[in-house]
Amino acid sequence: MNITEESVLQFHKGGKVALKMPRPVRTVEDLCLAYTPGVGKAVLRLDKHPEEAFDYTAKGKTVAVVSDGTAILGLGDRGPTAAIPVMEGKCVLFKSFAGVESWPVVLDNCRNGGAKTGPTDPQRVIEATQAIAPMYGGINLEDIAAPACFEVEDKLQELLDIPVFHDDQWGTAVIVLAAVRNYAQVSGKPFNSLKVAMSGAGAAGMRIRQMLIAAGVAQVISSDVHGVIYKGRPDLSGLLLQAAEDTPCRTLEEIMRGADVFIGVSVANLVKGDWIKKMAPNPAIFALANPDPEIRPEEVAAAMGDTPYIMATGRSDFPNQINNVLCFPFLFRGALDVRARKITMGMKLAAAEALAAAARIPADEATAALYAGEDLEFGPKYLLPKPFDRRLRALVAPAVAEAAIREGVARVTSFDKEAYAAALRAEVEA
Amino acid sequence: MNITEESVLQFHKGGKVALKMPRPVRTVEDLCLAYTPGVGKAVLRLDKHPEEAFDYTAKGKTVAVVSDGTAILGLGDRGPTAAIPVMEGKCVLFKSFAGVESWPVVLDNCRNGGAKTGPTDPQRVIEATQAIAPMYGGINLEDIAAPACFEVEDKLQELLDIPVFHDDQWGTAVIVLAAVRNYAQVSGKPFNSLKVAMSGAGAAGMRIRQMLIAAGVAQVISSDVHGVIYKGRPDLSGLLLQAAEDTPCRTLEEIMRGADVFIGVSVANLVKGDWIKKMAPNPAIFALANPDPEIRPEEVAAAMGDTPYIMATGRSDFPNQINNVLCFPFLFRGALDVRARKITMGMKLAAAEALAAAARIPADEATAALYAGEDLEFGPKYLLPKPFDRRLRALVAPAVAEAAIREGVARVTSFDKEAYAAALRAEVEA
Repeated sequence: MNITEESVLQFHKGGKVALKMPRPVRTVEDLCLAYTPGVGKAVLRLDKHPEEAFDYTAKGKTVAVVSDGTAILGLGDRGPTAAIPVMEGKCVLFKSFAGVESWPVVLDNCRNGGAKTGPTDPQRVIEATQAIAPMYGGINLEDIAAPACFEVEDKLQELLDIPVFHDDQWGTAVIVLAAVRNYAQVSGKPFNSLKVAMSGAGAAGMRIRQMLIAAGVAQVISSDVHGVIYKGRPDLSGLLLQAAEDTPCRTLEEIMRGADVFIGVSVANLVKGDWIKKMAPNPAIFALANPDPEIRPEEVAAAMGDTPYIMATGRSDFPNQINNVLCFPFLFRGALDVRARKITMGMKLAAAEALAAAARIPADEATAALYAGEDLEFGPKYLLPKPFDRRLRALVAPAVAEAAIREGVARVTSFDKEAYAAALRAEVEA
Repeated sequence: MNITEESVLQFHKGGKVALKMPRPVRTVEDLCLAYTPGVGKAVLRLDKHPEEAFDYTAKGKTVAVVSDGTAILGLGDRGPTAAIPVMEGKCVLFKSFAGVESWPVVLDNCRNGGAKTGPTDPQRVIEATQAIAPMYGGINLEDIAAPACFEVEDKLQELLDIPVFHDDQWGTAVIVLAAVRNYAQVSGKPFNSLKVAMSGAGAAGMRIRQMLIAAGVAQVISSDVHGVIYKGRPDLSGLLLQAAEDTPCRTLEEIMRGADVFIGVSVANLVKGDWIKKMAPNPAIFALANPDPEIRPEEVAAAMGDTPYIMATGRSDFPNQINNVLCFPFLFRGALDVRARKITMGMKLAAAEALAAAARIPADEATAALYAGEDLEFGPKYLLPKPFDRRLRALVAPAVAEAAIREGVARVTSFDKEAYAAALRAEVEA
């Protein structure tokens, strides 16, 4: 593959998003229906029945991809303009993978004290996002730095009656849970006996922890740059305080000792091969720092020799890539299609289960052809489905929609899961 | 034509806007270019060279259509959700008529004191619009009530280095100026001798006045619901104070006496046939209140008998429709294509002149076919070109672009007007 600055800029020329008109305006009658005088009738209708915006505007199928650019990929705070290509890219993935409409919303002027750089004032991001929300059926927050991102997501979800979902927090969490589920299957260890050691307590780290606990693993102990997050550590507050565990361990090396699973969402080259050797038998090493993992697959291989282990990274050039595109398009598709008011933990758990299950069913021919030469047989090198697996739309979105109905957060009340899945399959075929 | 609630809602089902992907993502390589890891290279490039967002994102060709829904069409304050169909419609017109990309941005939570209804707090609209601006090459403000709209437009233009244009203020003004220009031609009266009487001193009324004065008419006297806006009237402030003229007249009837042109942007059925009879010979009556004009064409006809006059309305079912779609798509197209920092009075005047000139050139065959049965010969019943006149893109946008270059507000420096017009003609043919 030819991923150079030149090829990237060539691909981006003129931007990656534009306007599509489901009903073009070609005649005087079209003009009178789409705009004055006809549109006045739609205005009066929505003034009386605002919920019908889901029917007569793009709201019901459209997600805002919102970022202040304070934590872009692994590149840190680059501001809203530099964030545009990522948000446009996200929109393209929403549409390509799940047929979800979306639009990039990059936010300027949201820093503390109105400064041009520096930490975000959560209140400004909340206000700007709340302001633009009426147009959308969901809000995908993206690349907003911790800890502002926690407050932004929580408060916005309180204020808005459409799903608010920070992908950097939850997207990775859903996919990691799916991978851990399948690690349990492959290793033969009971899921609820698993002991997990984590490195990283930012946006993703905190939510991975919460999801694993919600799904029922035995133990998750987290660490950050200052060491283990233990009960009584004096510098903790907010989510970190809630995450503190009663443990005598003080270092990552110590919490990895005897752990079944290591999950890193922190920095490159942090973990030593020796620490891996002291994990439980047949351990999982999910080293997800991007672009360079906490420990390179080659180092793990050298340390472990013939002893079995399972490894995942965030990279496309190694097996078991943890790629957010496996989750957010389908999660939002399911949520939008039942007009959900929020995305609950139950909906996220349902997405993770559906993803895990998808890897256990043999991939279809089209997927196999696209990933020719890769191992697509469920097992240590294939814990998760591939991004271009065309079955995912009809496997994941219906599970999410069903969970939304079950949990009472859907506006739609009549729902036939099989018929919905069939419609999605037909859409993918078309 | 069948403009019923049913046909309108049918047309609006599912919304009028969606996402188009100029470069779809179909392969693993596409995914790596459009999103991680490739997109990181575009981020770093824009971080260093923010101006290149015009090249490598959709910014350079995309306009935000922003409204708080406080003055929707003639329907008043209906809020942001009810405003969505209008803003979507505007986006469709931008694209259909001028190939301009755009996206609806309706703003909630911008009322004084955070109330759900009532007057807008200009500062909240300014902050929300400033926040979302980095994604766009221009801001089209829409359906924001006066007087907030004046402060919103002026302050935003100060804050942003992309064009900010409130269509309800200036769009109508540009087209009215074009119509007045051609009224002067048809009536044989020198443009700079014209005396104009106006009814309405809101968003459109104030800016029509300013444009006519900038273009050089002899006199414009305005009136509002309280009577003539004269020097010394005790209740005046802001733009109205600046608009006050030294005149003994106190009523609309008085200022219409002897005037060449009446322009109404106020309310239905305000003007009597008798008042029209006392205007100057061969007067222009531009009764633009929507949907019902200040005086109906039938009443004018009854009053004037065989005496010549020229009439225009905002309606599509009478000759000389003043329709904003004649201006904003082409004005923004020209501004975007030279990456203008603002829309100056010179650019607006250039748009008006180009529109007026277009009506004086015989319409092409395609336009004539579309408007079969209507009089398309330059004269009293055809002062302005028709909205679906396919020549407008290549006639108006280049005039605007040229003016932007001349006035020093364009980022693009090398500009060949003929080549640009030829490219636009080719685009329309395609």
